[in-house]
Amino acid sequence: MLECICPSFPLAFLCSCCPHFSFLIFFCALSPFLSLSLSLSLSACYCDYFSLILCFIFLWFSLSPFSPTHLSLSSLSPLSLSPVCTSRCQKFLISRVGEDWIFLILLGLVMALVSWVMDYAIAFCQQAQKWMYGGLDSNMLLQYLAWVTYPVVLITFSAGFTQILSPQAVGSGIPEMKTILRGVVLKEYLTFKTFVAKVIGLTCALGSGMPLGKEGPFVHVASLCAALLSKFLAALFGGIYKNELRNTEMLSAACAVGVGCCFAAPIGGVLFSIEVTSTFFAVRNYWRGFFAATFSAFIFRVLAVWNQDEETITALFKTRFRLDFPFDLQELPAFAILGIACGFGGALFVYLNRLIVECMRKQKTINKFLLRKRLVYPAMVTLIISTLTFPPGFGQFMAGQLTQHESLVALLDNRTWCRQGVAEEFDYISHSHAWKHPQVNVFITLILFIVMKFWMSAVATTMPVPCGAFMPVFLIGAAFGRLVGETMAVMFPDGIHADGSVYPIVPGGYAVVGAAALSGAVTHTVSTAVIVFELTGQISHILPVMIAVILANAVAQSLQPSLYDSIIRIKKLPYLPELGMGHHEKYNIRVEDIMVRDVRYITLSSSYREVQEVLMTGQLKTLALVESTDSMILLGSIERSQLQSLLSLQLGPTRRLDHLRRHAQDNGTHTHTLGAHAHLTSLDTMDSPPSPPCTHTHSYTSNTSNTSARHGVRFLVSVAEVSRTPAHVRILNPLPQIAEWEEQQLDEPVDFNNCKIDPAPFQLVERTSLHKTHTIFSLLGLDHAYVTSTGRLVGVVSLRELRKAIEGSVTVTGVKVRPPLASFRDSGNTTSVSEVTELHKLWNRHRGLSLPREPTPPDMEDQLDLVFLCE
Amino acid sequence: MLECICPSFPLAFLCSCCPHFSFLIFFCALSPFLSLSLSLSLSACYCDYFSLILCFIFLWFSLSPFSPTHLSLSSLSPLSLSPVCTSRCQKFLISRVGEDWIFLILLGLVMALVSWVMDYAIAFCQQAQKWMYGGLDSNMLLQYLAWVTYPVVLITFSAGFTQILSPQAVGSGIPEMKTILRGVVLKEYLTFKTFVAKVIGLTCALGSGMPLGKEGPFVHVASLCAALLSKFLAALFGGIYKNELRNTEMLSAACAVGVGCCFAAPIGGVLFSIEVTSTFFAVRNYWRGFFAATFSAFIFRVLAVWNQDEETITALFKTRFRLDFPFDLQELPAFAILGIACGFGGALFVYLNRLIVECMRKQKTINKFLLRKRLVYPAMVTLIISTLTFPPGFGQFMAGQLTQHESLVALLDNRTWCRQGVAEEFDYISHSHAWKHPQVNVFITLILFIVMKFWMSAVATTMPVPCGAFMPVFLIGAAFGRLVGETMAVMFPDGIHADGSVYPIVPGGYAVVGAAALSGAVTHTVSTAVIVFELTGQISHILPVMIAVILANAVAQSLQPSLYDSIIRIKKLPYLPELGMGHHEKYNIRVEDIMVRDVRYITLSSSYREVQEVLMTGQLKTLALVESTDSMILLGSIERSQLQSLLSLQLGPTRRLDHLRRHAQDNGTHTHTLGAHAHLTSLDTMDSPPSPPCTHTHSYTSNTSNTSARHGVRFLVSVAEVSRTPAHVRILNPLPQIAEWEEQQLDEPVDFNNCKIDPAPFQLVERTSLHKTHTIFSLLGLDHAYVTSTGRLVGVVSLRELRKAIEGSVTVTGVKVRPPLASFRDSGNTTSVSEVTELHKLWNRHRGLSLPREPTPPDMEDQLDLVFLCE
Repeated sequence: MLECICPSFPLAFLCSCCPHFSFLIFFCALSPFLSLSLSLSLSACYCDYFSLILCFIFLWFSLSPFSPTHLSLSSLSPLSLSPVCTSRCQKFLISRVGEDWIFLILLGLVMALVSWVMDYAIAFCQQAQKWMYGGLDSNMLLQYLAWVTYPVVLITFSAGFTQILSPQAVGSGIPEMKTILRGVVLKEYLTFKTFVAKVIGLTCALGSGMPLGKEGPFVHVASLCAALLSKFLAALFGGIYKNELRNTEMLSAACAVGVGCCFAAPIGGVLFSIEVTSTFFAVRNYWRGFFAATFSAFIFRVLAVWNQDEETITALFKTRFRLDFPFDLQELPAFAILGIACGFGGALFVYLNRLIVECMRKQKTINKFLLRKRLVYPAMVTLIISTLTFPPGFGQFMAGQLTQHESLVALLDNRTWCRQGVAEEFDYISHSHAWKHPQVNVFITLILFIVMKFWMSAVATTMPVPCGAFMPVFLIGAAFGRLVGETMAVMFPDGIHADGSVYPIVPGGYAVVGAAALSGAVTHTVSTAVIVFELTGQISHILPVMIAVILANAVAQSLQPSLYDSIIRIKKLPYLPELGMGHHEKYNIRVEDIMVRDVRYITLSSSYREVQEVLMTGQLKTLALVESTDSMILLGSIERSQLQSLLSLQLGPTRRLDHLRRHAQDNGTHTHTLGAHAHLTSLDTMDSPPSPPCTHTHSYTSNTSNTSARHGVRFLVSVAEVSRTPAHVRILNPLPQIAEWEEQQLDEPVDFNNCKIDPAPFQLVERTSLHKTHTIFSLLGLDHAYVTSTGRLVGVVSLRELRKAIEGSVTVTGVKVRPPLASFRDSGNTTSVSEVTELHKLWNRHRGLSLPREPTPPDMEDQLDLVFLCE
Repeated sequence: MLECICPSFPLAFLCSCCPHFSFLIFFCALSPFLSLSLSLSLSACYCDYFSLILCFIFLWFSLSPFSPTHLSLSSLSPLSLSPVCTSRCQKFLISRVGEDWIFLILLGLVMALVSWVMDYAIAFCQQAQKWMYGGLDSNMLLQYLAWVTYPVVLITFSAGFTQILSPQAVGSGIPEMKTILRGVVLKEYLTFKTFVAKVIGLTCALGSGMPLGKEGPFVHVASLCAALLSKFLAALFGGIYKNELRNTEMLSAACAVGVGCCFAAPIGGVLFSIEVTSTFFAVRNYWRGFFAATFSAFIFRVLAVWNQDEETITALFKTRFRLDFPFDLQELPAFAILGIACGFGGALFVYLNRLIVECMRKQKTINKFLLRKRLVYPAMVTLIISTLTFPPGFGQFMAGQLTQHESLVALLDNRTWCRQGVAEEFDYISHSHAWKHPQVNVFITLILFIVMKFWMSAVATTMPVPCGAFMPVFLIGAAFGRLVGETMAVMFPDGIHADGSVYPIVPGGYAVVGAAALSGAVTHTVSTAVIVFELTGQISHILPVMIAVILANAVAQSLQPSLYDSIIRIKKLPYLPELGMGHHEKYNIRVEDIMVRDVRYITLSSSYREVQEVLMTGQLKTLALVESTDSMILLGSIERSQLQSLLSLQLGPTRRLDHLRRHAQDNGTHTHTLGAHAHLTSLDTMDSPPSPPCTHTHSYTSNTSNTSARHGVRFLVSVAEVSRTPAHVRILNPLPQIAEWEEQQLDEPVDFNNCKIDPAPFQLVERTSLHKTHTIFSLLGLDHAYVTSTGRLVGVVSLRELRKAIEGSVTVTGVKVRPPLASFRDSGNTTSVSEVTELHKLWNRHRGLSLPREPTPPDMEDQLDLVFLCE
């Protein structure tokens, strides 16, 4: 069969003859010639897609029985491969498995499979509900119960399952990914448990038919998948997969895959994920996202063809608008107004969503009740929504029986409902009567649909289940666009064009524009425009869509934060907010206005006691090291854990024992020493958790995994106990000379030889503007930066101060918080001469001279902080 | 007419009644409500586009007669506006003119006009050639002369004009923009002269019909336009327009506008410009590009409608492929092979282009000849190319009579040439016989077209005229795709699909894929995929295009640099090359291997003489300031110009005069002093250029524009003269006591009070990896960074060292240059303890103690350089 179809690809022929050959093809795909191999896998896919996919899965499972942490490369041989290619495969695997594109192919493949299977399961769930509802049409009450119970059960299960397995799986996941890609470690968000909870919870939640979306959670699922895959491969092959930086790059590619395989929109996926998750984007990572998302979208659509859903690869929601005259130039104002309205609508949606969450939080009685009975809220919401959409009830006026997918297909239809009617046109869709009510106008149905879905979506997305808001918003936008389009069609029955030929208005085009504009307004992105082109498979409306999306963004961004930023604020995630557009007063706030002047530092001549005190008061992860308290010259920074291990080394059991032995030899008493020895060894081998008041100290070092540090912590704990509860120590340390010895040891100066020092911590100048500080923090993913003045440490700025400063001056009420020091600055001639003075002091110290001081010219001072980036 | 068409927009009605009202609308467009105003201008545009555009132009010209540098806001009143709205306009102008979007609208508008006018002019030029050629069909020789002379004259004029006015306008301009956006100042590339030269030169070059492109130069033109516009607005309104950072952001938006209005492809334009010019992209600037490019593309297409070229806004090269079954899944391998072949082709094109340039450079005789007679080379090339395309000659076999635009339209046609023939189908295009030769098969024509155009384009783009290579490459790709498509159509006459229904192959789809793949391979971009969708107005081939583009990129990127990077290397522009994919050995090279250890520095106790020596030996723009030669603690960096002004202050005329006066008072002699006074004032007011050996020194400071520095330079020149040619000085300085005084002054320690010090220059650690160094340099746009070891300055890394290190290990021959020091490192246990030793020294210096040194644990050392970014 096949050999006659494609004589140019003999491999494909071979492939169809020998099922084992698929393995060879898979391993050929791991050969260095990306190009050739992909074409092979492509040629393979159309003769036997399924065997190719199966072989991937097979490989996956054949590897997993081995303990991942101890599997070396040599143990790969028992893999059940045909013996002919085993050695070749191994060679390829070993030499090429570190390449990025293999990882990306695996990621794309897995995600496409997950997406497709999930879609299948969701469609099955929704079909089951319809079947139940349809089967019970004899009794209205039973019908209602079936219609309502089914989603309530699914949603409650989803909420409960997620709650028990991994509460981190709740919600969209895009805000969390944004935070993670910013550099903040949220480890519990990238575990296998979360993956399972998210996938199953999402399937149930969407299967219930509630107005929830798949896109946001899918970004999270893809990131989870990438994190797990890279952990798995790191355990298998080590090497490059252990690189932190690389994993972050892969995470950002994974976000693109998430959107890409959800909508079969590779380009839109890449752009959307960049817009939503990044602040600064490295163009060299661009291809990763494109490659993985394209592969993923390709497999996702190939699966549909393989399943006989489609004849060939086409768009998910294919439209059939006319190509020669897509829209009239004179329709553009209508599109622009649609965009502006969508902008207001998007802002309203974000506001409504936040309002609901905040209301529930503020009402203490509700809050308490909901905290105790976590499943009551989602069940209640589901009950209300499904009651309202009950088709024989109110649902008949708002096309309540349609699923999201069916509604969207109908809304993007290229016929005009108001003029040609609905029923006659929908012969190819079985739900023809949904939009056509005998008593009610199609406009009323549309308006009811928009209004009801609007608040329903806003409420539904606050439920504690894995769910996104993109798709519901997209649907509402499409409905609103359809409404405007139908109105235009009524107003201009013969089209606007005046030159003889009649081009009627296409309301489906308005639906496309509305969908892009509203989803763009809610998420504050422009790339929804690209997503709609890829979703509908037509790009003819590019200019109306772009204009509407930009206008909607302009309106929405000036009114409300994006939905994801709103959730970040609600969840209080440690994210640095973006600087608003045109907030020029940012240039006027400087680091000196926001920095913390009381910096914890240690000097080169610090004693261990000082180190201990510093450790116990501050909370920053690193501490500044200065030359001396007088000079304050910043030499570097030391990690907290390093200092703790220094302390523990000084007071460690070895030295303690040495001391005791020496002491014993001096005094000649043996019994005491033995007792002390026994005590110390017991301390040394003690495996019980430290006493409760010390858990705080302990938690700081829990993420340093090297043994010496862990070894040290235990002693640090006892050291902390010494100073906090001396009475307690006397019992622990029965020998008074040990306590005395410890006091002596603490007074000794610190030996920094064994200490890892970061010799170039990031430094800012007092006069660096807030704008520049924000840029540097975002670019480098900093946690804090020291503020120095000619080498002297004068303060520290951490993410917290920066966030406060930005949020303080971007208040919603419009009142700008002005830093108290900024007002002095505006007078111009009072520019601080502190920098020069400091330098002068230093200079005098070295020279022993005292020359008359001249004031610095103000124009020089003004340019000081510009030097940094513009050189 | 209008009131009945759009009753919802009364303003549009008003607009059509009163011509003066357009002004009001323009100023309404400056109101804070971006949304409303843009819709107003949109509603205006369809009743009277021309008046709106005219009013923009009018405003432009009404402002320009005023001297831009001195025009204050108060002088805006004499503008010829209707008195009703003058005050309101002024208020709007004053309050809103700083907003970014006004700038972007102006930029988009101007560029759309330029693009449209240029297209018009080019079409006119090409039409003129055809007309001449057609009118002379009686005499073959005359016809040939006309066909050949016309392009030779145009190209020679273009080359000469550009050479005379601004040689910077030659070539594409994208490499230069890439360098400028990287932070390197290439001022002469953004002047008004270059703008004029580029626009006129490009129009002539493209009008000649040579295989040259418009895209690359248009990116440059848009950037020029943005730079000039922001300079103009800065002169008018000052404030925000003077911000350097903002201007860079605007430049990157301008690049998007350039592509956007050239192809009417806003999304593709933004992405292409990001891929081509940026290394790290700030997502917050994303909207700027989208907004400006969309507006520009919109106006560009509206102009076409206004000129009756089009009925409504559609794509530039609209295709009409079938929507329901765009391609068969089983065609994908053919698309993949097409992509791979395009990858090889793209690499070959870049190689060929570089080879031609390098050949000409190496052949000294050719080189000398061409340098003397600059216009000979373009004339010769044009002569050869136009001779070969002469339609009655060889041109008849390669569709030589068609312009680029006509060829592209034909190639993207949705019919199958080989089966349906060509002539019958081309009824809607007048050049039906171009592809159909009575004796020659259409395949031969296509192959000849591809081969000839390939080398012609590679040669033509080396001519010293403003020209790009994107469009020719795009055309070749389309022809190659058409060739593959026609071959497929011959092989599968009834399509591949087996399920009964016959879907014939669409060779036009292959043309689209080929065009995207080849242009993607040459430029190393993925976004050409988006550009073809926007150019053709159809997105149905998204998956084949994406797959082919990615494969083409994979092949081309592994063989050759992109065309723009190749030009950067040829032109030796100061650009930091990208790190290649998967060059993991980069992690093994560290800063200590590449840094310059012999750093020029000054200490706090340096004398003026030392400063003078340092200034005369080094060439870096900034110098390090350390505490003392012993401690070497880095305190900051000082700009070269600052030191020069310090020196000039010390030896300046005021102090000189003071000294002479005091000296005179001491000695009582008056005549000498007067003479010296006269001499000094003559030095002070001297406006003649400095003597030739000093121009080098002078050029360093030429970009510092503040008067004090300029004032100082002149004296520095004389100081430099003092030390270089003492004999000469004696003549200049007739008074021996002045020379003596100067020597005294030079021995004095420097007073840093009047000096602008950057207290936080960027610091790296010796163990920072090359990969990380590259990231930091790219992110922050650094020129150099100091390498410190616990505060002590040990070296400096500049862009030059980094470039060398990267290029050294990415040799084409595959031999990796390994830094000599790296081999020692791999032994593992010999990790350098220099850092600890340094710290120890410092510590000992302060403590006066000497403790036994313990070796550092190697695992701590290994993590040292990770601290920087991962904290």
